[in-house]
Amino acid sequence: MGKDFLYNQIAGTIAINIKSGVLKTGERLPSVRNLSKEYGVSINTSKRVYFELEAQSLVQSKPQSGYFVSPMEYLKLPLPEASQPLAVANSVDPDQLINGVYSAMGRTDLTFFSLGVPSGDLLPLTKLKKEIVLATRSLKEGGTEYEPLQGNVKLRRMVAARSRGWGGSLKESDLVTTSGCMNALVLCLMALAKRGDTIALESPCYPGILHLAASLGLKVMEIATHPVSGIDVKALKNLLPKIDVCLLVPNFNTPLGYCTPDDNKKEIVSLLAEYDIPLIEDDTYGDIYFGNERPKCCKSFDTHGNVLWCGSVSKTLAPGYRVGWVAPGKYKEQLLKLKYIHSIASTSIIHEAVGNFLLTGRYDNYLRNLRRTLHDNYQQYATTIGEFFPEGTKISRPQGGLALWIEFPKGIDSGELYNLALKSKISISAGRMFTLQDQFHNCMRLSFGLPWTNELKLKLQQLGNLAKTML
Amino acid sequence: MGKDFLYNQIAGTIAINIKSGVLKTGERLPSVRNLSKEYGVSINTSKRVYFELEAQSLVQSKPQSGYFVSPMEYLKLPLPEASQPLAVANSVDPDQLINGVYSAMGRTDLTFFSLGVPSGDLLPLTKLKKEIVLATRSLKEGGTEYEPLQGNVKLRRMVAARSRGWGGSLKESDLVTTSGCMNALVLCLMALAKRGDTIALESPCYPGILHLAASLGLKVMEIATHPVSGIDVKALKNLLPKIDVCLLVPNFNTPLGYCTPDDNKKEIVSLLAEYDIPLIEDDTYGDIYFGNERPKCCKSFDTHGNVLWCGSVSKTLAPGYRVGWVAPGKYKEQLLKLKYIHSIASTSIIHEAVGNFLLTGRYDNYLRNLRRTLHDNYQQYATTIGEFFPEGTKISRPQGGLALWIEFPKGIDSGELYNLALKSKISISAGRMFTLQDQFHNCMRLSFGLPWTNELKLKLQQLGNLAKTML
Repeated sequence: MGKDFLYNQIAGTIAINIKSGVLKTGERLPSVRNLSKEYGVSINTSKRVYFELEAQSLVQSKPQSGYFVSPMEYLKLPLPEASQPLAVANSVDPDQLINGVYSAMGRTDLTFFSLGVPSGDLLPLTKLKKEIVLATRSLKEGGTEYEPLQGNVKLRRMVAARSRGWGGSLKESDLVTTSGCMNALVLCLMALAKRGDTIALESPCYPGILHLAASLGLKVMEIATHPVSGIDVKALKNLLPKIDVCLLVPNFNTPLGYCTPDDNKKEIVSLLAEYDIPLIEDDTYGDIYFGNERPKCCKSFDTHGNVLWCGSVSKTLAPGYRVGWVAPGKYKEQLLKLKYIHSIASTSIIHEAVGNFLLTGRYDNYLRNLRRTLHDNYQQYATTIGEFFPEGTKISRPQGGLALWIEFPKGIDSGELYNLALKSKISISAGRMFTLQDQFHNCMRLSFGLPWTNELKLKLQQLGNLAKTML
Repeated sequence: MGKDFLYNQIAGTIAINIKSGVLKTGERLPSVRNLSKEYGVSINTSKRVYFELEAQSLVQSKPQSGYFVSPMEYLKLPLPEASQPLAVANSVDPDQLINGVYSAMGRTDLTFFSLGVPSGDLLPLTKLKKEIVLATRSLKEGGTEYEPLQGNVKLRRMVAARSRGWGGSLKESDLVTTSGCMNALVLCLMALAKRGDTIALESPCYPGILHLAASLGLKVMEIATHPVSGIDVKALKNLLPKIDVCLLVPNFNTPLGYCTPDDNKKEIVSLLAEYDIPLIEDDTYGDIYFGNERPKCCKSFDTHGNVLWCGSVSKTLAPGYRVGWVAPGKYKEQLLKLKYIHSIASTSIIHEAVGNFLLTGRYDNYLRNLRRTLHDNYQQYATTIGEFFPEGTKISRPQGGLALWIEFPKGIDSGELYNLALKSKISISAGRMFTLQDQFHNCMRLSFGLPWTNELKLKLQQLGNLAKTML
């Protein structure tokens, strides 16, 4: 307690100096050794001070040169507007929505600011490969056999164990594995909603979920959100009498990257239980938090088995592995049946390999680095956007995840910018894709999952210049 | 030509002697060397004679002991009745159908005569493991990356090349890969049919397809079939005005194992094109033929792009790999969109590994052995059934695939037998699962994908005895 107090106090003092501008962006800070001398504390305490300041994004370490004040100009950029979708149920022909979305997939000549997954350069490839080889050797029939219906036991055990980290108390028997999170969402929606039903989604919303709703013939009501505090609980409450199912991404929802406060999550869970509306919770970004703590989930507050909590390793470890899961609460039997009918099983070897990878404890080490890298990337992106994007550009303040939301001054149509950018071999996600309503024309999503390089900075600068030509 | 004539003539002579009973079941035939002396032909010609006779199932080779006349008593058992479903559209709550189907999954204490896939003992595990390791090493980002949307290029190229073997002319661009054949069927049905539509299926039909139709809210019309000649084209024709989509398994349909003659396939394709009804063709058993030639597919006769031809390696190579494909004809765009929306991608590593395995040419060698083993198994099963099952039992004459259809004398309810057998740790598939109508109560499906052993023979004998107690 004494020591905790000490390092917190020192970190607090330095934080104030940074935030007030006494310490300037890019300025070098004392070495760990010098800090320990200056404050008369141990080396370990001194290290914890910098760890704490890094976690708050106030300080950056550079290999072989020490600690520096993080660039924070971008914090002066205004926030995007809170979304204000109309309280109407929209349905749409999926064909209209999706045409052209995947035409760029597989092109190697593009800079994919539109990519929603971390680049392979950030992933622990060597360790994963080793796990695949081991799984192939250790499975009784080399993985040619079907898994148990509920899915790989090790994977379920580890996902259950990790639920303690977000205030959950899952057991392995509570979980059903799936082929990625998207597959989990498909199964949940098919189990709970039928053609013509109405589903509530955040606005803006990940286009994949809008496509899915459209392809299942579901009507969509969009929920107002705030770029920092996330889901507008009052707005959701107003929609409740009209909806059948709710699908939310409370933690680091793409594109905005907000984290809905725990109290609001709790309120949402209790409201939905009251109305007997099932909540599908997509927590696939939950492990990519930039703060000090893994945020809780709606599932943490679920006492009725009414929350179907979905996750995957597609945003953190290996998109191409197709490994996901769902804790379906009281809907477990329905989920199991649908899984059996629609896919029989997932890929045995790969799920075994990921289960083993989680068992080794390497995942947490790796995640720590991934989070730091992505947070650094975000700061670099935001700084560059502040420098080179049109005057009046607003940006979100992601508290985790992989993406930034940009709001251009009115008049810049991101659909047109998409076409312009593509000619310069840059792929972006236009704002219009994130809604079924008439909004977000001047918005776009940028993924910061690509490694930050000078080349990438130039591309981002180029994108800003293209936007300026449209004013 | 001269040589062909020679070996065919000798084989024909021996065949007549076997069929007429001059040569008896189990009798030893001359060695290759002695046969060559006896007829004054080369050793190679002599070998071809036995190969031909084996292909006709008249002769069996036993390692280190030579060639013997195959047991064929079972050919005297009567055929099951041709199915005569009512021409009504049925729909059903999937829950009613599926309860208990998967409760036995994963149990290791049961003898799974109900298993619809070949046992791991029959699979080329070592070679497959090697391919997985190689794929993990050779893929640019170790397989963590998403595949191209249409799927692994090597896999598509090889499936296209193999289509020459069944009179197809597919190009790699005609194919879309899927996570197993079931996933292909799901995507096809979702693309082509909407809730309330009517689909035509063979009667009896693989339960997984009935479950799928039910879970998508489709009504089902069952098509009459004959245990040897398969789909009753006239019966299908009568249903056409009432159906929206047709899903057929013309080659070695489980449970009956028939092969619909090529002329009938051609007629079916032309009829459906005339009525503009899409045909989903499940050809997942097509490579497991017991005769001399890979049968053609409906797709072989498709000039309108109206046939969606689906396949997988789940019945031949590795059920747990989840590797399948579809050549969707003119519905390719719809299929691609649905694949993108519902699963994004398949598992990169595994699809690459199977693509490479097919490239090496090992698949054909391996399939040759697999077919021989399964055909031998079938004969052993059938012989044992003839010996130990109740008087009046009828059995199908599978021309390929993995399963036999048994018709017990009226009065033996296979649902009751299922319960009895489970107590003796034997799992069977009751006939009632293969229809939505009131039929097949006295029928069951037996898989012969388990390796034939004395132990297995005793289990089958035990099953026969249990059935006898029910008369």
